[in-house]
Amino acid sequence: MRSLTQPERADLDLVAVLHALSDPVRLELVRLMASDGEVSCSPEHLDIPRSTLSNHWRILREAGLTWTRSEGKARYMTLRRDDLETRFPGVLAAILACAASPLRG
Amino acid sequence: MRSLTQPERADLDLVAVLHALSDPVRLELVRLMASDGEVSCSPEHLDIPRSTLSNHWRILREAGLTWTRSEGKARYMTLRRDDLETRFPGVLAAILACAASPLRG
Repeated sequence: MRSLTQPERADLDLVAVLHALSDPVRLELVRLMASDGEVSCSPEHLDIPRSTLSNHWRILREAGLTWTRSEGKARYMTLRRDDLETRFPGVLAAILACAASPLRG
Repeated sequence: MRSLTQPERADLDLVAVLHALSDPVRLELVRLMASDGEVSCSPEHLDIPRSTLSNHWRILREAGLTWTRSEGKARYMTLRRDDLETRFPGVLAAILACAASPLRG
């Protein structure tokens, strides 16, 4: 298995986090993790190609939004809520509170 | 003078706002407006080409972060703090509270 780039808490960068959140699909993935906890790489209700989703998950992971767990070929993601709250207090909570859910059918 | 694209409060989009903030120069321009009020298009302490700054200001304006006032050839920008707070409560305040200032010498 390839090792996954996942920055340490101290290396989280606000600009990278904001960039990761500045896409409607990624914002929806973050909302999903915030509400459901661990999420599989292809959530059922999202009608988006797996390769596109995979790219979005990579951007979220590399920006430090998620922890990724591999199980066989599947991956499961959780939101690094504590790390984000520690480094950027209130930012994620405020964004989640006002993010609409345009992609959930 | 060309008319400037500046979305109404009701048309502000969270993803566009986050994208506008996901750049170190633009984040610094927003910090500057938050601290100084009205800011000219080429702030003295920023050693960045005018054309690059102009592009950053355009992105901020089109995303609804700024109001732009023209005076002769110069432009002056202010942060649309009230509009942003009304549409996305707490988001800008939380981001400004933890944004470092890497570009101010």
